[in-house]
Amino acid sequence: MNEITQHSEKKLVLAAGRAHPELAAQVAEELGTELLPMSAYDFANGEIYVRSGESVRGKDIFVMQSHPAPLNNHLMEQLLMLDSFKRASAKRITAISPFYPYARQDKKGRGREPISARLVADMYRTAGADRIMSVDLHTAQIQGFFDGPVDHLFAVPLLSDYIRTKTEGEDLTVVSPDTGRVRVAEQWAERLGGAPLAFVHKSRDLTVPNQAVSKQVVGQVEGRTCVLIDDMIDTGGTIAGAVRVLKEAGAKDVIIAATHAVFSDPAAQRLAESGAREVVVTNTLPIPEEKRFDSLTVLSIAPLLARAIREVFEDGSVTSLFDGNA
Amino acid sequence: MNEITQHSEKKLVLAAGRAHPELAAQVAEELGTELLPMSAYDFANGEIYVRSGESVRGKDIFVMQSHPAPLNNHLMEQLLMLDSFKRASAKRITAISPFYPYARQDKKGRGREPISARLVADMYRTAGADRIMSVDLHTAQIQGFFDGPVDHLFAVPLLSDYIRTKTEGEDLTVVSPDTGRVRVAEQWAERLGGAPLAFVHKSRDLTVPNQAVSKQVVGQVEGRTCVLIDDMIDTGGTIAGAVRVLKEAGAKDVIIAATHAVFSDPAAQRLAESGAREVVVTNTLPIPEEKRFDSLTVLSIAPLLARAIREVFEDGSVTSLFDGNA
Amino acid sequence: MNEITQHSEKKLVLAAGRAHPELAAQVAEELGTELLPMSAYDFANGEIYVRSGESVRGKDIFVMQSHPAPLNNHLMEQLLMLDSFKRASAKRITAISPFYPYARQDKKGRGREPISARLVADMYRTAGADRIMSVDLHTAQIQGFFDGPVDHLFAVPLLSDYIRTKTEGEDLTVVSPDTGRVRVAEQWAERLGGAPLAFVHKSRDLTVPNQAVSKQVVGQVEGRTCVLIDDMIDTGGTIAGAVRVLKEAGAKDVIIAATHAVFSDPAAQRLAESGAREVVVTNTLPIPEEKRFDSLTVLSIAPLLARAIREVFEDGSVTSLFDGNA
Amino acid sequence: MNEITQHSEKKLVLAAGRAHPELAAQVAEELGTELLPMSAYDFANGEIYVRSGESVRGKDIFVMQSHPAPLNNHLMEQLLMLDSFKRASAKRITAISPFYPYARQDKKGRGREPISARLVADMYRTAGADRIMSVDLHTAQIQGFFDGPVDHLFAVPLLSDYIRTKTEGEDLTVVSPDTGRVRVAEQWAERLGGAPLAFVHKSRDLTVPNQAVSKQVVGQVEGRTCVLIDDMIDTGGTIAGAVRVLKEAGAKDVIIAATHAVFSDPAAQRLAESGAREVVVTNTLPIPEEKRFDSLTVLSIAPLLARAIREVFEDGSVTSLFDGNA
Amino acid sequence: MNEITQHSEKKLVLAAGRAHPELAAQVAEELGTELLPMSAYDFANGEIYVRSGESVRGKDIFVMQSHPAPLNNHLMEQLLMLDSFKRASAKRITAISPFYPYARQDKKGRGREPISARLVADMYRTAGADRIMSVDLHTAQIQGFFDGPVDHLFAVPLLSDYIRTKTEGEDLTVVSPDTGRVRVAEQWAERLGGAPLAFVHKSRDLTVPNQAVSKQVVGQVEGRTCVLIDDMIDTGGTIAGAVRVLKEAGAKDVIIAATHAVFSDPAAQRLAESGAREVVVTNTLPIPEEKRFDSLTVLSIAPLLARAIREVFEDGSVTSLFDGNA
Amino acid sequence: MNEITQHSEKKLVLAAGRAHPELAAQVAEELGTELLPMSAYDFANGEIYVRSGESVRGKDIFVMQSHPAPLNNHLMEQLLMLDSFKRASAKRITAISPFYPYARQDKKGRGREPISARLVADMYRTAGADRIMSVDLHTAQIQGFFDGPVDHLFAVPLLSDYIRTKTEGEDLTVVSPDTGRVRVAEQWAERLGGAPLAFVHKSRDLTVPNQAVSKQVVGQVEGRTCVLIDDMIDTGGTIAGAVRVLKEAGAKDVIIAATHAVFSDPAAQRLAESGAREVVVTNTLPIPEEKRFDSLTVLSIAPLLARAIREVFEDGSVTSLFDGNA
Repeated sequence: MNEITQHSEKKLVLAAGRAHPELAAQVAEELGTELLPMSAYDFANGEIYVRSGESVRGKDIFVMQSHPAPLNNHLMEQLLMLDSFKRASAKRITAISPFYPYARQDKKGRGREPISARLVADMYRTAGADRIMSVDLHTAQIQGFFDGPVDHLFAVPLLSDYIRTKTEGEDLTVVSPDTGRVRVAEQWAERLGGAPLAFVHKSRDLTVPNQAVSKQVVGQVEGRTCVLIDDMIDTGGTIAGAVRVLKEAGAKDVIIAATHAVFSDPAAQRLAESGAREVVVTNTLPIPEEKRFDSLTVLSIAPLLARAIREVFEDGSVTSLFDGNA
Repeated sequence: MNEITQHSEKKLVLAAGRAHPELAAQVAEELGTELLPMSAYDFANGEIYVRSGESVRGKDIFVMQSHPAPLNNHLMEQLLMLDSFKRASAKRITAISPFYPYARQDKKGRGREPISARLVADMYRTAGADRIMSVDLHTAQIQGFFDGPVDHLFAVPLLSDYIRTKTEGEDLTVVSPDTGRVRVAEQWAERLGGAPLAFVHKSRDLTVPNQAVSKQVVGQVEGRTCVLIDDMIDTGGTIAGAVRVLKEAGAKDVIIAATHAVFSDPAAQRLAESGAREVVVTNTLPIPEEKRFDSLTVLSIAPLLARAIREVFEDGSVTSLFDGNA
Repeated sequence: MNEITQHSEKKLVLAAGRAHPELAAQVAEELGTELLPMSAYDFANGEIYVRSGESVRGKDIFVMQSHPAPLNNHLMEQLLMLDSFKRASAKRITAISPFYPYARQDKKGRGREPISARLVADMYRTAGADRIMSVDLHTAQIQGFFDGPVDHLFAVPLLSDYIRTKTEGEDLTVVSPDTGRVRVAEQWAERLGGAPLAFVHKSRDLTVPNQAVSKQVVGQVEGRTCVLIDDMIDTGGTIAGAVRVLKEAGAKDVIIAATHAVFSDPAAQRLAESGAREVVVTNTLPIPEEKRFDSLTVLSIAPLLARAIREVFEDGSVTSLFDGNA
Repeated sequence: MNEITQHSEKKLVLAAGRAHPELAAQVAEELGTELLPMSAYDFANGEIYVRSGESVRGKDIFVMQSHPAPLNNHLMEQLLMLDSFKRASAKRITAISPFYPYARQDKKGRGREPISARLVADMYRTAGADRIMSVDLHTAQIQGFFDGPVDHLFAVPLLSDYIRTKTEGEDLTVVSPDTGRVRVAEQWAERLGGAPLAFVHKSRDLTVPNQAVSKQVVGQVEGRTCVLIDDMIDTGGTIAGAVRVLKEAGAKDVIIAATHAVFSDPAAQRLAESGAREVVVTNTLPIPEEKRFDSLTVLSIAPLLARAIREVFEDGSVTSLFDGNA
Repeated sequence: MNEITQHSEKKLVLAAGRAHPELAAQVAEELGTELLPMSAYDFANGEIYVRSGESVRGKDIFVMQSHPAPLNNHLMEQLLMLDSFKRASAKRITAISPFYPYARQDKKGRGREPISARLVADMYRTAGADRIMSVDLHTAQIQGFFDGPVDHLFAVPLLSDYIRTKTEGEDLTVVSPDTGRVRVAEQWAERLGGAPLAFVHKSRDLTVPNQAVSKQVVGQVEGRTCVLIDDMIDTGGTIAGAVRVLKEAGAKDVIIAATHAVFSDPAAQRLAESGAREVVVTNTLPIPEEKRFDSLTVLSIAPLLARAIREVFEDGSVTSLFDGNA
Repeated sequence: MNEITQHSEKKLVLAAGRAHPELAAQVAEELGTELLPMSAYDFANGEIYVRSGESVRGKDIFVMQSHPAPLNNHLMEQLLMLDSFKRASAKRITAISPFYPYARQDKKGRGREPISARLVADMYRTAGADRIMSVDLHTAQIQGFFDGPVDHLFAVPLLSDYIRTKTEGEDLTVVSPDTGRVRVAEQWAERLGGAPLAFVHKSRDLTVPNQAVSKQVVGQVEGRTCVLIDDMIDTGGTIAGAVRVLKEAGAKDVIIAATHAVFSDPAAQRLAESGAREVVVTNTLPIPEEKRFDSLTVLSIAPLLARAIREVFEDGSVTSLFDGNA
């Protein structure tokens, strides 16, 4: 007798960084489990220390981190967690980044720029991630930056279902705040029953961060309820400018919908004062109390993440969560 | 004395596959050199044989191939050339693919699709390419698929300069044939002096190849000369449909401009009969005599490729060829 | 409770490219399963599209493709399938190529040639194959080109068992058609009960494809039934020439045996008219009706492939299928 | 029905090289299994041949080798075993090297030296090891040389428990034989109930192998029982010199403790004649009969290795074997 | 004529991140060049943008960054610079990190910890660094974490020369503040003419950052000038405690010497009030005005960095800068 | 002015391991240079230490080693040299192994064997070799085991020119000692003016090292001078047996020619007593005085190696050394 035999089991473990404990707790609850106990703290010079309080040997571990400011710290914490789990003999490691870091730097807009989103993918791989899960990537091509499986989840169904309910009977136009999101607006339009499209035509100086100049509307918006969509709202300048332009062009009402509420200052103020009827986002990023305002609606992404994690763990189908489109 | 010293020289060599000898010859002539002599033939079962007739040891070699149908053959030939040069001790290898193969498959449009453009980048790397040079990638994110330098050249200046000359005094609108090209249309509009934008709103069944259904125009086109732009024209269905829609919407004239003339049947016929005033393309792909028609203008990409090759070889700046935007 | 536990199961899935549906169906039937439903078609310019109709998450998937002409297309289709399964989270991926592409280009016969068979191995790896399965590699060293397990199956037992039955009581000589197959002939001789060896001594101009000049026989063939063996028959020139030389040298009868029936034109005609008593091959490659002739016998490789797949899936022993020699 | 389903099992297999059959047998016995039958022999020119006598397909295989002189042979044998198991489709491969080869060459002590311990880690990876297990690495940083999990076991508890029993009631001082082991001595001191520390201050000519010049004691040793500790004893020069210095400094007694008994000549003689009361080592390396002497105690490392292997196989915790410090 | 020939030149370019502009300027001045002009700024959510203002094609580029708090930001900036230079066709890229980030996390002190210093090495490689240059690594083994050349510079000669001059005629003892630095103290002792050694024996709770408990001195310090050495001073707790213990043990005077002045609060205050005669450090990290105090001496590392860069660029010898020990 | 410019030079350096100093000295002399001074010695337990006495920064270094018994030691020494040169910033590293280690283990002859020759190629790569140079590889496919350039030199011209001179006017037959070398014999025959071919048909038990049973001759040898060729002679059993069989078959004379004189005992005695007229080999391996015998002729491979090194260094053509066949 020269081998020892055992039945194989697989075990799901959910670990989370320190960036967004509320979301992590929600996902754990949806899954019916508890978060892996972790030690994590910062040294005085900014170096981060992490260590699992329990063995992760042989586990199918999901390493969730949110990426608000200061983004580099949260990214580094996640990478250190990945490295520690790799060296601790985890069986499979999935990095979950609901808001993919550096997603906007996904190409060389000008010569000699980095392709930071690819670098992030390579760093996830280097640190030990076998797989990545994310929500509404800035561009779908980012999936191709990672040399392995990427579970790309969509928040558009969640957001659009909510908006459809709230706008019953209104004449909708789906509006892209710039020329780069018209294709996404088209997908929204389909989900809202074939609403017409419009976009705001602006020019932006790429060498200055977080700035944008809104200009004019292309498409029919007069007298209509405009659903102004984007994947993320950072300082809110582009979006707030678009609301103004739409109002000037005769829009009856504007509802803003975006997946990622980056909400860098002064986004909250701008949005609150923009004249939009409602601002609908998800909680892929934490939104502190002081950045919340009356017209803001935050939908939880936790049920979607939990369902996807379970499909991955059970070898089910993530695609099936989105009618075959994931 | 225990070392032998020599002055270093660097030597540029241009090699080309069999797909587009005319373009290769033009580039060689622009550079003032001759193509590397190659043996290349097909075995009866489709296997390809390649071998350089001269030593490439220590050379800075540029391996140019065009990718018309049958595309997989041309791609494989280029990969075999890369492998042979790697094993023959070339110093640096740049794969030049003016039309990047499988560029349209740059993301998972639906679950369980490959990301073929990433696979192509990985195969170039595996076969031995240190660098890639291409023209007007379907999406700029493809640069991030390759783990190394990509020289991304733009044909838009070439095409737009030509069109500006031919449309002096006319009222132009730049039109994207679908929602995915509006951002590119915006770049065209800037080069054409701030022309207004429009786009055609269509729906396409992704599960059936080469089909598209044009629908309606968003933006002002009535009484104007429309410059209908795209990166490539395959079967021409989308573009020809867009011409029809624009005409119906009152456009005075339509000029079509695209970088890559894939021209799968029945593209030539469709374009010739589309009612467009002129169709302007480049020769990144060979256009056989039988696919040429009266209103077709083909601009040569060879001078641009030759200038870029020279900048790469001489450690100059490719970015500088495009006013800092490459 | 901070982990979720499940029993592990493993699931075998068989997928196949479009090159040889008959063989794929036979293997599936032998296994008692059905092929994974796939969408696969060609774009007009030759680009291939593939997509699985079902989830392959967590599956132990075997990706079978045959490689007749146009070989590069079939190879690329298989690579795209591998990439799609890797990105769709298959657990383990085995590429099955009964006839290994570019196997003849397994070394630098002359300086500056590629080593195409190694490039193919690297491309399989790059695209996502964890393992390879193949039949009668042109040289056994090709196993070493892949950085991982290679299940190398042998058709010689299948072919030689058949021939032994058909030649009972005859005086056999095993003949290699050139100097490169004498070692393989020796293995045949052992399986045929210690028959004597001979070979045909020819010279071949390597720079011209598919040509060969037969010359003279070394070894005893007069009055004997010659079993002329090779791993593949491409255009049939070498083999047909060998039959003629053997007949001239007094051979009583010639039986041809080869694993891979490439049968590029005019192989079928040459073999039919060669004077050989029988031509025995397997169906690692599809043989269309018009290339079949009276003296041709095609043995099915499907039972062997199916048995090997099952051994791999069940962690059995492939070596045991060949008396410890695999 | 297009998939075949089976329950997953996992199977532990223990294989061993030829360097230390006694230890391998002990570990197998502790585990309650038998060693994998292997063919292994040397060709006349030193090339080694290895082959498993049974299938290892799908197995969780532990490949144990000890590394006494001639070390390079034993290392190469282990690497060949790893390669053979990788190509034979083992599921997971753990290289067990109780004494890590080339551990002393873990940095560039001078410019232009190799970092041999990193090279060894890379060779283990290249040959096919997914994981490494070792005992008392020369420096803990060597764990970081391997890109994957390293199970680092500690013999200090085993050794110190033994010594504590044998020295009850005595006044102990823990002594490092040089300045590089003071940190380790501190760990020993903690395990021996907070004994004081001392070290011998020597200078060593790094360019001459196996030589050292002992000098003077720093710390209190007069009238005390000194526990002189090190990770390995090679020729014994440093250690024997330290005993002499300690005796001269008034030490009442000296007990030597080390994990790895390299025992190159004339270590046995030096130690036997050193005046040390007892020399305690483990059997990570074989100690032939002629190198054993009266005051030598050899503790078996086999139970520790067996427990660690079982924890790894069963997805338990190796850290737990050492009170959370592994 | 089928090749174009040019003489090869090599060009050194020095680029720097934003962490320590003063040191970068000093190094540039020592080299007789100017820093590469860079655009670099932070987006509101912490994402960093970098872009070179000039072409770096074909350049031998040295990418210098200092790593004070917030360390992760500075590290990420350097990684993005590396990525941008790699994609911009730099010929060779050397990452210069005078203070290596996460150097203290160079091993698994406890199970399930990451090996962060290895992760950093891997990220440098992934981002594009061909080589690394650093000063006084926390442990020399970190060199082995990088798969390529590491130029490891030593500040000890600089510091010890200064101290030798300032302590002429005094009786020196070199003191390690804990058991882990005794070997380094020995190297100091050699450079100070064979001074005796001592160390402070403390215990530290590894699970709480930046804390340490000093205890007792081992070695002769009474009436002597103690040179208390370390590689870095973070919060200064360990060092200040060591000064107190040394004073209590009768030391006449204490001089502190360390390469890296991390100086996290309240290090400056602690050191100023520690009773040490002088604190000597280098400027591998920036020391803001408010953290400077009377007894602090800062020696510039810039001349050493500049000399090393020049040796690397000119294919000279970095080892020769340190009498063959680098 | 923000870059520093210098003319590039390239410098050839030749380093050698300790296995065959005579050959190294010959090659250095042919090149007109001296060997790099190296420190190299063995630790008592077999660990090897190597270090260059001079800087190799920026050098084009050729690292030559011969591989007689004990082969693993010599291989490990070469690997450590490669690692040290990689870490010391050599510009390009070529491993020269005139006799490629483990070349006979180039395939899985039986299931579960390693492919040791591939492992060696991977270890060369891992340790730092950019390129490999070797002479008369056991099979040409080994070139494909290395992922980079392999300069494959041929000794057949050297050997055959010598033999042609010595056999003028004689009737030659080229004989392969077994079925695996008939193709090589054919190449010999061409170089000897179209001599006829023969081979000895033997069976060999693969599980027992260095044994072979000769049997019978296929081909015409009666009354002729047989040139019995092989790539290497190990224990000489096969070759000596072949001489006997040839003599029995009526051969007039036998001349043995082989590139690699492994000469494991009792090869020298067997060859001396075999009855062969002359035994011609090269000095790719050292042949100690006690293994030389009267009929042995040793041709020096040094001029060929030196010419190839110079072609590589000067970016010439190695292929040209062999009339386009290398």
